Amino acid sequence: MSLIKEKSLQYNLHSWSAQKGIDPKVITKADGIYFWDEEGNRYYDMSSQLVNSNLGHGNKAIVQAIKEQAEKIPFISPAFAVDVRSDAAEAVVKLSGMKNAKVFFTNAGAESNENAIKMAKQYTGRWKIFSMYRCYHGSSAGAGMLTGEPRHFANEPGPAGFIKYDGPYAYRAPKQVVFTDEDDAADFYLELLENQVLYEGPERIAAIFLETVVGSNGVLIPPQKWMKGVRDLCTKYGIVMVCDEVMAGWYRTGKAFAFQHYGIEPDLVTFAKGVTCGYVPIGGVLVSEKIQKYFNDHQMMCGLTYNAHPMGCAAAVAAIKEYERLHIEENVEKQGNVLRGILDELSQKHPCVGEIRQIGLFSAMEIVKDEKGTPVVSFNCDPDGMMPKIIGMLMKEGFFTYSHENMIVVAPPLIIAEEELREAMAILDRVLDSVDGMI
Amino acid sequence: MSLIKEKSLQYNLHSWSAQKGIDPKVITKADGIYFWDEEGNRYYDMSSQLVNSNLGHGNKAIVQAIKEQAEKIPFISPAFAVDVRSDAAEAVVKLSGMKNAKVFFTNAGAESNENAIKMAKQYTGRWKIFSMYRCYHGSSAGAGMLTGEPRHFANEPGPAGFIKYDGPYAYRAPKQVVFTDEDDAADFYLELLENQVLYEGPERIAAIFLETVVGSNGVLIPPQKWMKGVRDLCTKYGIVMVCDEVMAGWYRTGKAFAFQHYGIEPDLVTFAKGVTCGYVPIGGVLVSEKIQKYFNDHQMMCGLTYNAHPMGCAAAVAAIKEYERLHIEENVEKQGNVLRGILDELSQKHPCVGEIRQIGLFSAMEIVKDEKGTPVVSFNCDPDGMMPKIIGMLMKEGFFTYSHENMIVVAPPLIIAEEELREAMAILDRVLDSVDGMI
Ligand SMILES: Cc1ncc(COP(=O)(O)O)c(C=O)c1O
Ligand SMILES: Cc1ncc(COP(=O)(O)O)c(C=O)c1O
Repeated sequence: MSLIKEKSLQYNLHSWSAQKGIDPKVITKADGIYFWDEEGNRYYDMSSQLVNSNLGHGNKAIVQAIKEQAEKIPFISPAFAVDVRSDAAEAVVKLSGMKNAKVFFTNAGAESNENAIKMAKQYTGRWKIFSMYRCYHGSSAGAGMLTGEPRHFANEPGPAGFIKYDGPYAYRAPKQVVFTDEDDAADFYLELLENQVLYEGPERIAAIFLETVVGSNGVLIPPQKWMKGVRDLCTKYGIVMVCDEVMAGWYRTGKAFAFQHYGIEPDLVTFAKGVTCGYVPIGGVLVSEKIQKYFNDHQMMCGLTYNAHPMGCAAAVAAIKEYERLHIEENVEKQGNVLRGILDELSQKHPCVGEIRQIGLFSAMEIVKDEKGTPVVSFNCDPDGMMPKIIGMLMKEGFFTYSHENMIVVAPPLIIAEEELREAMAILDRVLDSVDGMI
Repeated sequence: MSLIKEKSLQYNLHSWSAQKGIDPKVITKADGIYFWDEEGNRYYDMSSQLVNSNLGHGNKAIVQAIKEQAEKIPFISPAFAVDVRSDAAEAVVKLSGMKNAKVFFTNAGAESNENAIKMAKQYTGRWKIFSMYRCYHGSSAGAGMLTGEPRHFANEPGPAGFIKYDGPYAYRAPKQVVFTDEDDAADFYLELLENQVLYEGPERIAAIFLETVVGSNGVLIPPQKWMKGVRDLCTKYGIVMVCDEVMAGWYRTGKAFAFQHYGIEPDLVTFAKGVTCGYVPIGGVLVSEKIQKYFNDHQMMCGLTYNAHPMGCAAAVAAIKEYERLHIEENVEKQGNVLRGILDELSQKHPCVGEIRQIGLFSAMEIVKDEKGTPVVSFNCDPDGMMPKIIGMLMKEGFFTYSHENMIVVAPPLIIAEEELREAMAILDRVLDSVDGMI
């Protein structure tokens, strides 16, 4: 065993794991859509790490910006103004198209949601918070209580007033529910949500959170009508609409922010990951005009040592310029279509592939047992490690990604070329042949 | 107004503030114990920014490590091992002297406490959490509910089970309480704490949190006997003892970790700030042998995208080497004594100076109205902005620090030389002359 791995097992605690038996690969190099382990094996980074390496590895402009900022002022207290701090906020606001918005920067995704919760509560003077089942918003006490899947169990008992609703997931609707079309599905889920809002008392509800496109939990793409309906519901009852774009933002879906597909403007948008592609940690909350103005005269009760960290801001400014310079929007549209075609073929060909869902370079497939779409593992229950086995087979063939429940995520760096995408997906095709034999 | 400031006001939301009327200085340069605004004014950094710039600004070795890591692998998923990730964990564990400890890295202070809460709850299977009034542990939902001062009000209603106790603060004990000596004071506060533990049910209490030395709330230094007593109490009832060393750690008090002054070993230690001096955000939880071993067979329900971020790890490894190379431990002892002498003189000379407290280069003075020590502002109530006025006067003279309640913090970078310290403290002396006239 190499010394690096030995020390990793001796000194590091590893996320979401029992520590016995884990075997972390040692990574020694990363470039573009690839990375390499210490034995020289190359991997296609088909989940952009944790869906954050949107511009791939080794982007020279971001690296250069980091180096320059490190020489200049790596850190200064949030109380002060610094060029990159101002520039990063300006760049994020402009990209969002949200008129007169402001940004409050944090270190990452969970913290952005933590601060959005506080802002919504302060702004409305209310205390109940709605969020969706099958969503992930982070693992700190507040973000964890937003999270509507098992990773939040360790946050319990959480604060009172966190309420979960069912978002649109037509593929897994009970069989008694019959949808004529997407609008019809939207109406159904909107009715459920509005009923729940009424039951809980609209005048007590501070915010409705959603992932604009649900990420980790399997790329669930809400219908147009549903998103507009939630916007209307929030407006009607004075509820703050919060779009978590930690994963869906930063061109992942083909637009800078996913909400831009829906012709709506959220009241708060949380972000992280793609804003720097993870080169330096940073996240933030985009705050719409009406909420930021509220904080002109009211003390905003949010703060953290590394608010608007100059290193993160410098990386963000550089990354945002790179998204432009590399015509990422265009590439996502083009490769997204290629990906769609391949996924369609895979779903035709492989009995183990159930619904596929794709928007831009953000996609997932359900691994199922039969034509009815029975998931290959039941909820929060995979005692034989079926899904990790599949992910391991892919890894062995040089295809890196992760799974969630019975779903496999495919979300490569947004700089991927068609040929690379086709090569990588050919690996997935071969592994799915084996999976067909396992179900 | 410069463009940087204009944009800052237009696009950035500023921590803990009503946004109207703030006037952030634009900082353009920082070096050693100094930084400069855009008009060329130089400031002594007498609070090490937010008590994190322990090695001062522009440390070449940390900057170099950042630049090299940016070129190599700025980010890779926490699932993998990387050299700096292993090295950083090893370095932190070794410095702590905690045998067979492991580290779980986060982005900053609040997140470290969030994860410590979860670990303690998982390890004990209990759910109540004790923490101290007049402590600050961060502003996210969990860390905020640990916090025992007004900055957590916006986190309410918080999770059930967060219980506050009174820690040792002899200077502000009710006048009916008479202490014969420090041990006697320790006994008093220990009796209060043990009673409260019994009232709440020891078998329900997962953790007792404390700041080893209370930082933001005025450098409250617990007596030896109290710290040992809390350790014994935790051992007796199977409660996890958590020392928050986000501010007190990293040689601030003269030792790598403040708990090392007390001859005890906590079960969990949370840290951030000084580990990289803020050059790149990182924080973490040091996990003692018995708790890390529990997670061999039990899934640790902690995770975040930027867990053990390579950039933060690289900066940490470099900073830890710099603390050694620059003989920081020795300098803190030496300058700490100088500081003590100066503070004693100031308290003799100025009627407005009440108790002074100092350990290493960590100190605070209470600004008081009279010989009885009545605080110049009452708790959470400074309608005339008396304390900001004093801080503003200091700033105008080139002395940067912050206040909390009626207290002024003095905590310069640990690289400060005697002459610099004397020069800076002479400014404070002059400003205190004016404060004497204001009370
Ligand atoms: C949608 C969403 N929100 C929040 C988070 C939490 O972000 P972080 O891990 O940076 O705290 C994630 C992380 O995967 C996410 O996907
Ligand atoms: C003792 C202590 N704990 C936790 C924190 C929170 O750290 P952060 O602001 O990095 O979240 C602070 C910040 O000042 C602190 O002083």
